[in-house]
Amino acid sequence: MTATMEQEFKAWMLAVQTRTEQALDAALPPVAGGPARLHEAMRYAVLGGGKRVRPLLCFAAGEVTQASGEALDRAACAIEMIHAYSLVHDDLPCMDDDTLRRGKPTVHVQFDEATALLAGDALQTQAFVLLAEGVATLSAPQSLALVRELALASGSLGMAGGQAIDLASVGRKLAQDALETMHRMKTGALLRASLRMGALCGRGLADDEAAALDSYAGAVGLAFQVVDDILDVTADSATLGKTAGKDAAHDKATYVTLLGLDRARALAEQLRADAHAATAALGASAGRLRALADFVVERIY
Amino acid sequence: MTATMEQEFKAWMLAVQTRTEQALDAALPPVAGGPARLHEAMRYAVLGGGKRVRPLLCFAAGEVTQASGEALDRAACAIEMIHAYSLVHDDLPCMDDDTLRRGKPTVHVQFDEATALLAGDALQTQAFVLLAEGVATLSAPQSLALVRELALASGSLGMAGGQAIDLASVGRKLAQDALETMHRMKTGALLRASLRMGALCGRGLADDEAAALDSYAGAVGLAFQVVDDILDVTADSATLGKTAGKDAAHDKATYVTLLGLDRARALAEQLRADAHAATAALGASAGRLRALADFVVERIY
Repeated sequence: MTATMEQEFKAWMLAVQTRTEQALDAALPPVAGGPARLHEAMRYAVLGGGKRVRPLLCFAAGEVTQASGEALDRAACAIEMIHAYSLVHDDLPCMDDDTLRRGKPTVHVQFDEATALLAGDALQTQAFVLLAEGVATLSAPQSLALVRELALASGSLGMAGGQAIDLASVGRKLAQDALETMHRMKTGALLRASLRMGALCGRGLADDEAAALDSYAGAVGLAFQVVDDILDVTADSATLGKTAGKDAAHDKATYVTLLGLDRARALAEQLRADAHAATAALGASAGRLRALADFVVERIY
Repeated sequence: MTATMEQEFKAWMLAVQTRTEQALDAALPPVAGGPARLHEAMRYAVLGGGKRVRPLLCFAAGEVTQASGEALDRAACAIEMIHAYSLVHDDLPCMDDDTLRRGKPTVHVQFDEATALLAGDALQTQAFVLLAEGVATLSAPQSLALVRELALASGSLGMAGGQAIDLASVGRKLAQDALETMHRMKTGALLRASLRMGALCGRGLADDEAAALDSYAGAVGLAFQVVDDILDVTADSATLGKTAGKDAAHDKATYVTLLGLDRARALAEQLRADAHAATAALGASAGRLRALADFVVERIY
């Protein structure tokens, strides 16, 4: 990328992050109406933090299909609420038992365990409320397709299932293919859904375009995880905004423990190249997707 | 009811309960495909128990609008998965910390806390997968309306919100109006949604019919809770299939602590009469609804 392109891309990222924050603020139930503590916890879990990687992927895919901003806001908010609910529940004492997230105390530390449990539950529900209420630029079949994508990606064959496999694997290190299956479910499914939902908000994709988007999603999803594993050993907690060194502490298999740092970095570069190659069938409108693959691999937190 | 009518009604109840059990079995992910432990826990939480009150309400309302059995199965399964998820999470140590449900060990006792958390999460998601996948006799706008009803009833302004208010009230007894608000959210909202979703599966309701169904829902929802409070002090754990005397142990306000046993029974009778009166606008097709109001008030577990 030239310096001008990079500057333009950064401005676009900031614009998507800013509008997502505003849309989430509007889409979350107000504290005033009550139940106050529950709504405070939901807002605390979602607002004021996060890289908003999933909304960025959603908006970038929406550019390929000329989706409306209104529809993409809706999809991005629903995805981000699912993501936030999963973090709140993952951080609970019976799961990862973590105290730091996005540079702040986790929800059960800031509030209490029961409130964190209910806030996560209600965030998941609110994601489906948003999609079911729809917006003017989405037809009922489109909104229903968004519900389907999001639910399939986050259920027992997607995110929640990946989390279950991850839990079962603590202390008995997974081989690379099992590790890939786990990550494809735990984080890859929702990243892929973010892309597919962004595209669904606009015109339909031709079969070759849909296949290209899926193979882009596979490469970027895996790259995201490989870089996460690298950062877990190379960055400190303050930079990450979450506890560093957690995987080693939990004796978890990671791409770094499996491959070593150098080969993990080479894998991330390969996946970036794969992601770029996949966008060929999507033409000029996939510029943001290419730049996002760079961002995912080059990010330092 | 005459003896013949009662026999016919009992046969209908058994038929709905049986087909719901079969539909749930088919709608839950198989253990074989994995993640096995997660899917086992989901199936354990949903199958082989429960009075299936919500599916009964759903099917009874569907008779009013000539809904197809296929559509009602779909709606009933989604509702029952939401109900089951809420029980799994309510029983967790950080909530009610209960060990007995439907006569069996609770999910976190039978499996473990993390699995119970994830099974509840994935059951909620699976409810929306089912509705999003739809069936041939439901249009996309109908399926989307079902998603909306179910999500609104179970989120922070419905079931989850009622649970949060219930939690906050332990130890400081609620007045009758606050108690009613809490129950209207915690259990009433999903009972009402069961009725509305059943009706939505068929032809649309006229405004006066929709109003009649809502006022039936209000009366039956409250009656259900009053009878629950009565049974908590008059029945034993073996009959209930869950821990009896729990409300008193948790120092919770109930209709029995507020009104005493006799006035609580009189209230249940009044609500049964209200429910019957509300069905007048629905005509002959509301026969099942009237019989269900009797069942809710007369049940002994």
